[in-house]
Amino acid sequence: MKPVKIGLIGLGTVGSSVFNLLKSNGAEIERRVGCQLLVSHVGARRDNPACDLEGVKVSRNVLDVLDDPDLDIIVELIGGTTLAKDIVLTAIQRGKHVVTANKALIAECGQEIFLAAQKQGVSVAYEAAVAGGIPVIKAIREGLAGNHIEWLAGIINGTGNFILTEMRDKGAAFDDVLKQAQELGYAEADPTFDVEGIDAAHKLTILASIAYGIPLQFAKAYTEGIAEIELADVHYAEQFGYRIKHLGISRRTENGVELRVHPTLIPESCLIANVDGVMNSVLVQADAVGPTLYYGAGAGGNATASAVIADLADIGRSIGADATSRVPALGFQPDAMSDQCILSMDEVETAYYLRLSAHDHPGVLADVTQILSKRGISIEAMLQKEVSDPQHDLVPIILLTQRIKEKEMNAAIAEIEALDSITDKVVRIRLEHLDAQTA
Amino acid sequence: MKPVKIGLIGLGTVGSSVFNLLKSNGAEIERRVGCQLLVSHVGARRDNPACDLEGVKVSRNVLDVLDDPDLDIIVELIGGTTLAKDIVLTAIQRGKHVVTANKALIAECGQEIFLAAQKQGVSVAYEAAVAGGIPVIKAIREGLAGNHIEWLAGIINGTGNFILTEMRDKGAAFDDVLKQAQELGYAEADPTFDVEGIDAAHKLTILASIAYGIPLQFAKAYTEGIAEIELADVHYAEQFGYRIKHLGISRRTENGVELRVHPTLIPESCLIANVDGVMNSVLVQADAVGPTLYYGAGAGGNATASAVIADLADIGRSIGADATSRVPALGFQPDAMSDQCILSMDEVETAYYLRLSAHDHPGVLADVTQILSKRGISIEAMLQKEVSDPQHDLVPIILLTQRIKEKEMNAAIAEIEALDSITDKVVRIRLEHLDAQTA
Repeated sequence: MKPVKIGLIGLGTVGSSVFNLLKSNGAEIERRVGCQLLVSHVGARRDNPACDLEGVKVSRNVLDVLDDPDLDIIVELIGGTTLAKDIVLTAIQRGKHVVTANKALIAECGQEIFLAAQKQGVSVAYEAAVAGGIPVIKAIREGLAGNHIEWLAGIINGTGNFILTEMRDKGAAFDDVLKQAQELGYAEADPTFDVEGIDAAHKLTILASIAYGIPLQFAKAYTEGIAEIELADVHYAEQFGYRIKHLGISRRTENGVELRVHPTLIPESCLIANVDGVMNSVLVQADAVGPTLYYGAGAGGNATASAVIADLADIGRSIGADATSRVPALGFQPDAMSDQCILSMDEVETAYYLRLSAHDHPGVLADVTQILSKRGISIEAMLQKEVSDPQHDLVPIILLTQRIKEKEMNAAIAEIEALDSITDKVVRIRLEHLDAQTA
Repeated sequence: MKPVKIGLIGLGTVGSSVFNLLKSNGAEIERRVGCQLLVSHVGARRDNPACDLEGVKVSRNVLDVLDDPDLDIIVELIGGTTLAKDIVLTAIQRGKHVVTANKALIAECGQEIFLAAQKQGVSVAYEAAVAGGIPVIKAIREGLAGNHIEWLAGIINGTGNFILTEMRDKGAAFDDVLKQAQELGYAEADPTFDVEGIDAAHKLTILASIAYGIPLQFAKAYTEGIAEIELADVHYAEQFGYRIKHLGISRRTENGVELRVHPTLIPESCLIANVDGVMNSVLVQADAVGPTLYYGAGAGGNATASAVIADLADIGRSIGADATSRVPALGFQPDAMSDQCILSMDEVETAYYLRLSAHDHPGVLADVTQILSKRGISIEAMLQKEVSDPQHDLVPIILLTQRIKEKEMNAAIAEIEALDSITDKVVRIRLEHLDAQTA
């Protein structure tokens, strides 16, 4: 069979890895796909010394790649949602298949892009957009096609997981670990996207869409970052047998779909609680298969390139095949999407870890427990430490609660903070058991 | 689109789950696939009270299903390699696609079956044959298509893993736990296939073939069961920070492919060392993505049915599409299989756990270490326990060695057993670190 011709736009870390892997593993990939996957045109503003581009057409104006009539597939690896969006939409208009690793683009503009692709009968593939090299899009979209998926929870941002892992292992504070992560190249100079959970929310938006067949609704995702996590909470959590992870969680309930990224206590016996450092992992609870978990590198040039090439192989095989025989972009047929709403955080139910700073007066605990009980909040476990600040007779009280709607918990916390004996804002971290019954 | 018509042969645990899930999740599956997956003919010697077969054609002679001209896909779920093989080959001859969960059939007769399917231009899908509901065939065959896969290691028999987990957790002996597993329905009355590693070797044979693009060579797989594992070894392993798991391991070396199932010490910090009970997990080391791990239920009606339906969905989408656009049965194009040999165990290199029972005489240790050193075997760690049997002054000596070819180790063990001071057969369990460098 004649080679599949690829236009590669973007020659940074991921782009250069795709280019080099297609060469170094080319023979093996051809043995799998049945034809060569050939990068015949590269669009990059400058050369990348990691790549030997001899014999390859190179355009400095990346848009010129789109004018090349010989190409079957355009690979977009420049990131962002402006130029990248133009590139992807133009490629589709010209009847090219598209592969991208751009989670922001898919999460924010996916609807428009997939609609255009459907009209043109081309594929837009994005395995690399979620959890890097882990083939989790394929697993959910195809491997679990027989299931009603109930919920999923993922460590889908390596930077955040690295920071939380280091805090626990080394007892270092958030700011110090962040600085270290930046030095190691795990965190960007501006770490907002990672640390605030925006990157994770992009990925979670995509996962929820393919899991339940709902439109992409990034704007409705709730995100809470890890910058507020204190070492004390990491240690208290450990005393109860929990670890704090920055999770993306989505759950299908009767009233709508939960879509939330926040620090979460999870039992240390969970496999996913033991996913450390920059690694990613997604746990999926489905009605037939039960829990399945997918683990691997969520970032890095080669790991991301692995997913890009898997998409190229899929498209390479299907070139010439009828578009109806392909897996739909969001797993479900475009005309069969469900209109379940995304739940507001007020309506989301989880358990909670609370840390209160209280004067060591008799009656404090009675006041607190009464406020909780009035709102139907049951206490699962409690830890009252020795006086931590003898000069001000302050004691930390740590509570684990049972599941309750967030609006009840917020109201209770407001009442607790209004008590004279409570000196500080209440520290509140959500807690999930990740067992079959609940998210 | 008109429904895809399925003939379901076998209505036991898995067959009835497939039938019921296609009904209960039918609407959601149709939203994914774009057409209904309809079981229109069931072949079963007797009814299964779990299934409401109203409106479905039923044949008591299962071969009659093959005569039904309306069917698009035959699902073979009767197991075994005799009648099942006839059914699959006949279905192929008649131009039907085939889905099976039969690992023995694929591992032992897959070459013949896939050749016949290729000639007829039909698909034979078998996701359910390995690791039950975990979509690991799809992950390796498609999701890692850009990688050179270096090795893989899997807990791919739930019964064996349940027994080893219970031995460790409850301190129970092998025979007692086996009896318990049989009572719980986790182990067959004749547990040979599970306990001796034959079932795992079937699955490993399939995994190795799709990972490296080599023919299925079940006959060359090395299998060693778990019946010899003593509680003492489980505990000594734990003191060194290891767990004993019954692993299927395959590694691509310069000289050939390792293909072996045996009890293995692995570091307890490995994620896969924490896969307990009846759960399955496969760890794959590939050059681009690095390690990825897939975890879930390896058995059970619904979990296995989940994988069967994923195959049905794939075929349902591709019906009418050109056969060349489909994923090849063994991941690699049939004319691009590699002829790398399977290594004999003599040539396989691993580290070892050794337990010696020795008279407490001076010089024993010197004799043992000299024998090891003479053969180039380095000692990684040693534990000499107090005299365990004061009447006979016997002491257990536990050694962890570095990696060495099995033939050297076998020769050294023979020499050690010939020493006067050594009273018993040497207990030898292989040890793998499962890090990026080694299997």
